[in-house]
Amino acid sequence: MKWSNEQLLVDETLYFTGNGYIGLRGNFEEGYGTGFDSIRGTYINGFYETIDIAYGESAYGFPKTAQKMVNVTDTQDLRIIIGDEDLSFFTGEIIDFKRDLDIYKGISTRKVHWKSPKGRELKLTFYRMTSFVTLELALFKVTLESINYEGPVFFISGINGDVENYINPNDPRVASGHGKLLTVTEVKANEKIGSITSETKRSGHRVTTLVGHSNPGQVDEHLNKVEWAFSKTIRQGQTETLTKYVVFTDSIRHEEPYKAGRDLLEQALGLTFEDHASRQKKYLDDFWKYSKIRVKGNVSIDEALNYSVYQLLSSAGKDPFSNICAKGLSGEGYEGHYFWDTEVYMLPFFTLTNPKIAKNLLKFRYETLPYARERAKEMGHNKGAKVPWRTIKGTECSAYFPAGSAQYHINSDVAFAYIQYYLLHKDMDFLKAFGLEVVYETARIWLDMGHFNDDGDFMIHCVTGPDEYTAIVNNNYYTNAMAKYHLTWTVRLAKDLRDFDEDAYESLMERIQGSLDELSQMEIAARSMYFEYDEKLGVFMQDDSFMNKPSWDFSNTPKDKYPLLLHYHPLTIYRHKVLKQADTLLAMLLLDDVQMDVFERCYDYYEPLTTHDSSLSPCVYSMAASRIKRSHKAYEFFNKTVRLDLDNLHHNTKDGLHIANAGGAYMAVVYGFGGLRIKADGIHLNPHLPEELEGVAFSVNYGGTLIHVELGDKIIVNGELEVKLYIYDRPYVLKGHMEVNYE
Amino acid sequence: MKWSNEQLLVDETLYFTGNGYIGLRGNFEEGYGTGFDSIRGTYINGFYETIDIAYGESAYGFPKTAQKMVNVTDTQDLRIIIGDEDLSFFTGEIIDFKRDLDIYKGISTRKVHWKSPKGRELKLTFYRMTSFVTLELALFKVTLESINYEGPVFFISGINGDVENYINPNDPRVASGHGKLLTVTEVKANEKIGSITSETKRSGHRVTTLVGHSNPGQVDEHLNKVEWAFSKTIRQGQTETLTKYVVFTDSIRHEEPYKAGRDLLEQALGLTFEDHASRQKKYLDDFWKYSKIRVKGNVSIDEALNYSVYQLLSSAGKDPFSNICAKGLSGEGYEGHYFWDTEVYMLPFFTLTNPKIAKNLLKFRYETLPYARERAKEMGHNKGAKVPWRTIKGTECSAYFPAGSAQYHINSDVAFAYIQYYLLHKDMDFLKAFGLEVVYETARIWLDMGHFNDDGDFMIHCVTGPDEYTAIVNNNYYTNAMAKYHLTWTVRLAKDLRDFDEDAYESLMERIQGSLDELSQMEIAARSMYFEYDEKLGVFMQDDSFMNKPSWDFSNTPKDKYPLLLHYHPLTIYRHKVLKQADTLLAMLLLDDVQMDVFERCYDYYEPLTTHDSSLSPCVYSMAASRIKRSHKAYEFFNKTVRLDLDNLHHNTKDGLHIANAGGAYMAVVYGFGGLRIKADGIHLNPHLPEELEGVAFSVNYGGTLIHVELGDKIIVNGELEVKLYIYDRPYVLKGHMEVNYE
Repeated sequence: MKWSNEQLLVDETLYFTGNGYIGLRGNFEEGYGTGFDSIRGTYINGFYETIDIAYGESAYGFPKTAQKMVNVTDTQDLRIIIGDEDLSFFTGEIIDFKRDLDIYKGISTRKVHWKSPKGRELKLTFYRMTSFVTLELALFKVTLESINYEGPVFFISGINGDVENYINPNDPRVASGHGKLLTVTEVKANEKIGSITSETKRSGHRVTTLVGHSNPGQVDEHLNKVEWAFSKTIRQGQTETLTKYVVFTDSIRHEEPYKAGRDLLEQALGLTFEDHASRQKKYLDDFWKYSKIRVKGNVSIDEALNYSVYQLLSSAGKDPFSNICAKGLSGEGYEGHYFWDTEVYMLPFFTLTNPKIAKNLLKFRYETLPYARERAKEMGHNKGAKVPWRTIKGTECSAYFPAGSAQYHINSDVAFAYIQYYLLHKDMDFLKAFGLEVVYETARIWLDMGHFNDDGDFMIHCVTGPDEYTAIVNNNYYTNAMAKYHLTWTVRLAKDLRDFDEDAYESLMERIQGSLDELSQMEIAARSMYFEYDEKLGVFMQDDSFMNKPSWDFSNTPKDKYPLLLHYHPLTIYRHKVLKQADTLLAMLLLDDVQMDVFERCYDYYEPLTTHDSSLSPCVYSMAASRIKRSHKAYEFFNKTVRLDLDNLHHNTKDGLHIANAGGAYMAVVYGFGGLRIKADGIHLNPHLPEELEGVAFSVNYGGTLIHVELGDKIIVNGELEVKLYIYDRPYVLKGHMEVNYE
Repeated sequence: MKWSNEQLLVDETLYFTGNGYIGLRGNFEEGYGTGFDSIRGTYINGFYETIDIAYGESAYGFPKTAQKMVNVTDTQDLRIIIGDEDLSFFTGEIIDFKRDLDIYKGISTRKVHWKSPKGRELKLTFYRMTSFVTLELALFKVTLESINYEGPVFFISGINGDVENYINPNDPRVASGHGKLLTVTEVKANEKIGSITSETKRSGHRVTTLVGHSNPGQVDEHLNKVEWAFSKTIRQGQTETLTKYVVFTDSIRHEEPYKAGRDLLEQALGLTFEDHASRQKKYLDDFWKYSKIRVKGNVSIDEALNYSVYQLLSSAGKDPFSNICAKGLSGEGYEGHYFWDTEVYMLPFFTLTNPKIAKNLLKFRYETLPYARERAKEMGHNKGAKVPWRTIKGTECSAYFPAGSAQYHINSDVAFAYIQYYLLHKDMDFLKAFGLEVVYETARIWLDMGHFNDDGDFMIHCVTGPDEYTAIVNNNYYTNAMAKYHLTWTVRLAKDLRDFDEDAYESLMERIQGSLDELSQMEIAARSMYFEYDEKLGVFMQDDSFMNKPSWDFSNTPKDKYPLLLHYHPLTIYRHKVLKQADTLLAMLLLDDVQMDVFERCYDYYEPLTTHDSSLSPCVYSMAASRIKRSHKAYEFFNKTVRLDLDNLHHNTKDGLHIANAGGAYMAVVYGFGGLRIKADGIHLNPHLPEELEGVAFSVNYGGTLIHVELGDKIIVNGELEVKLYIYDRPYVLKGHMEVNYE
């Protein structure tokens, strides 16, 4: 077996273990061979350092600082010494090697059958898990079975506070030169447990990392580092085991991280690895009840899909201080920032299957609303909130506004997720406590951003849509369509809250200085929203000037010039008809508000112009193709989506999983094949199964009721309680079991 | 007399002395009082260090490095000790203080009548000049007359290599944090002369600064610094004098800077200050012959105008390695970069009065053509040259492309200056040696940038015009109009060269792979150039989407929010109808190609939308108002132009003179009041004198012939030789003296 450095880096990402709070990259505990790179990383969701943003030329309103996710104390270290030989799988001979991430147990394993250079044969298994039950907890277990060796064995297990973030000066998507973000302030250790507390200098956050083992060891304290040595004697056929308990606590969540962590560690040490594993299993059983997708007759796709779903769970923040990073907690790409990805690509999954997590994710935008209000002022708006394009703490972290702050659509993306959640779960408490406030505050920006032209059309100028291959355009279709939906629903939600609890409504309106007059302006703006339509083509234009651009010369663009953004100046890209990702079509899909013939013409128009240079694109095209019953295309794009990270299709999986794409894979099935939409009158299904698949099945949580949808020869729907839904726009009342034919 | 720190900083700029090679800020030789700031600076045109450009988010084609003008060895140091008192005008009493820059002698003086804290009364005069005859040479002279003091006096004159550039982190227009650019590598000194050689680490340039005095002193060598002490005894009524000779030589111009400088210094020391002053006078007499503007009945304006003209001369590079910095050599604003200012605002003056300097300035773009060709490739063009938006050495130094590289119009601005020079001077050698090559190479970019729409219109997308308050727009009027002129004249110049010297033409076309086919494409593109015209208003639109924007809310914008760019995010500005500076009107003025009624409507439309936040704006509006005979407006804008630096109207004169505005003041008279244009058939005049002025007079060099134009009660034109010209579009043959009435 020959190691490939590239694949090792990819595997570090693919086998990462996370629970939404902690993320541990799948690094080898014992290290790598000489000359091998590794991105050794441990991340805490929402734990950041403040860094300066540098500009060659700055301007008013450019953010001066950004947040960056911190690589925290390394707890993966485990050296094993077999007699006089250091265990390293880069020496000797690998007889068998197998890695696995069991998404139903929430445990990753690495099994190695190894013969040392001196011929000592051993079988090792490395287990690790990050607990979904106790988010601060991670566990490592190693078992070592001797095949032919007899003699001493030493386990040296450590924690190391000397950590840095990963730097790659050649890739704008990874980092911008801030390596050392954490400083150790305190190290404590005895033979049972130890801890390292570190802090970030500028953001002023502390993190304590505590560690304990299944049995006491010989402690050795170094500068910023502690090691425990466990010395054993092993015989042929015998197995030795070590379990390491790790707890991370930080000052964002805990007033006294050390104290809180110490309590958690003590509790955790009271249980065996197996105890924790069984709690983990129980949590996941609940999770999979709603989340499992079954693909008939194709194990590889079934696995890949459920892997995606599991990674969504592993990445999603589960407290008010965190959300979902673009790369989850699996790598440092995009510096751990939260984007619109959460609302548009990931929340549909949670909203449909895990309303509790969904609600928490939604709440993040409420918690950070004060920053969004400040940002709105900086951007020249007297009222309202402007959601940051990328952030951890809530302030705008985008250093390139044409493809950053200019993406005003994020305001409506957030609102869209809020509205969808509300429509599905009819959660009035949600609406009252923060739902309407966020929707309203983000909506009023449109009244200021847009204006009425002489014909009474409401126009929105100088924005960038999801497709970043055009920038600072007028009347971007996606933006205008989402804003229209947003404004329309702001009015309706306001009415709903007034009907439900007038006092709450009045007090909110007073607090945010909202008014019926403003609501009526919103209604008019929504009704008058302008969309550029080309009569000759019968196609909605991505923006006012899109039609007039020359086409990109695709036939003379060699494959190695993709993604275009890495090979052409933005201006070269901007002035051509070329898309990085779906834009107009995405809005049409999410809102389901245009005639199918128009939709089909738009698909035919935009599809050949799209490079899919963004990982957010193929899943949308898969859904779009499903919508117009183009099976092969739908399946083809779905395949690119579902295998994107597993096959490293974008060549940067080493920097982390494309979590939005994981959400997109889910959507390609449920929104695509299932044709599911959440509308004012409930769930709609427009199923269409590609010929390439024998069948798929999924469940959704419809306001507390489980609905199971099976697409095979027929459409089979099962429900727990009586519920109304629409199939091919015809209403059905589901009672238990129902079968419908395809159209 | 009370010192104002702000005014001192402004005066350092206003009294700067330069000759196009050296620039010395008007710092006090003896220094300032405690707590006073000063920007102590000495600059060499084209002498730069390479610095990194930082980006929070970078992209393909963003320049990685920039050049920055270097503050070189300080030679201004002169301490004077009166007995036991250090001379400082911040102690004791100022009885009289007068500063002057004699633009006809090329000498600045500072006369001070001072009483020391101990009552010693002295009169001092500090003279300085940078020689126009020997560009490397600067001279300082000080005379000290004792009124009531008798005793020892010490002059301590130094040169100091420990210098840094000025940093102001709060103003994006000044600097970006690179202070220390120069390292001393060698210091030599004896009692007669001394030198400091320094180098820039990254660009690898050396500069040697040599100094000598009228008589030997006692030399004292410090680290990176040399001082000479001159000890004298003075009596009442007696005057003591010291002259300091300074020579700067650099490795860009000289293979052995020290050797070359030493020779120059020896030569210079052979003459007295007065000798050098009389040579200077002779040079300036020649200069003023063509350059002098006379304003009847208004001394203040007369002075201000000729001050502007003199500063153009003081700033203009006179060798192939330099051009004109945005701030001349008077300060560090815009880091010493060359912009389109040279071609559009400054070259008209030189082309009309000093063809030799004009030709040299034009040649700079030829010398740097290889870099422009490289840049074109980076920007996605297979052929041609893309002139950098800002540069010293020739590479693009703009770190913010929407108001940088996106300003493609600079290609045509350069070509415009070339064409104007050619039309006026019929310099076939110029055309053959480099003129056509630059015009052709910069023109072919348009064929790639633009495209034909379905109606056969030639459109240019995704550019930024001169008005940076909109960015990345389609069919910017200025850009399209200038490109049309550029393309049209490329074809004509090619024909002219072919007619004149077919071999030269063929060899050029072969070298740059030009073709008749390409020329014919240029012709078609020019003829089909698209301009957005609003039929209802009868006005050409600044770009395709300008009409659809909402107006800026001027009535609710308080005065302290100007310039808008320092108080609003670019997106807020971009999406409104608001101009930083003239755009459409500027093209119409330069090209004189639209009907007067259209021009007038455009004036009325754009004038109220223009903030004049750029110093390049009022002069254009003055010319525009002149064109439509709106006297008061023309005069009002002219006044803002001509007094801009003298009255520190933009509050940043401390960072250097607005040299383009100086050129604009000249243009406001000659192009504005005189209505002068250079056209294919020669010089056109459309005089219109504001009532506020009794008369103005100026001269131009019309292909070697001096023409003197006087606007008073009548239009009086005098010419040396017989020449054809147009007044109010009627042809005249000028022989000696001619009088014409106003229309």
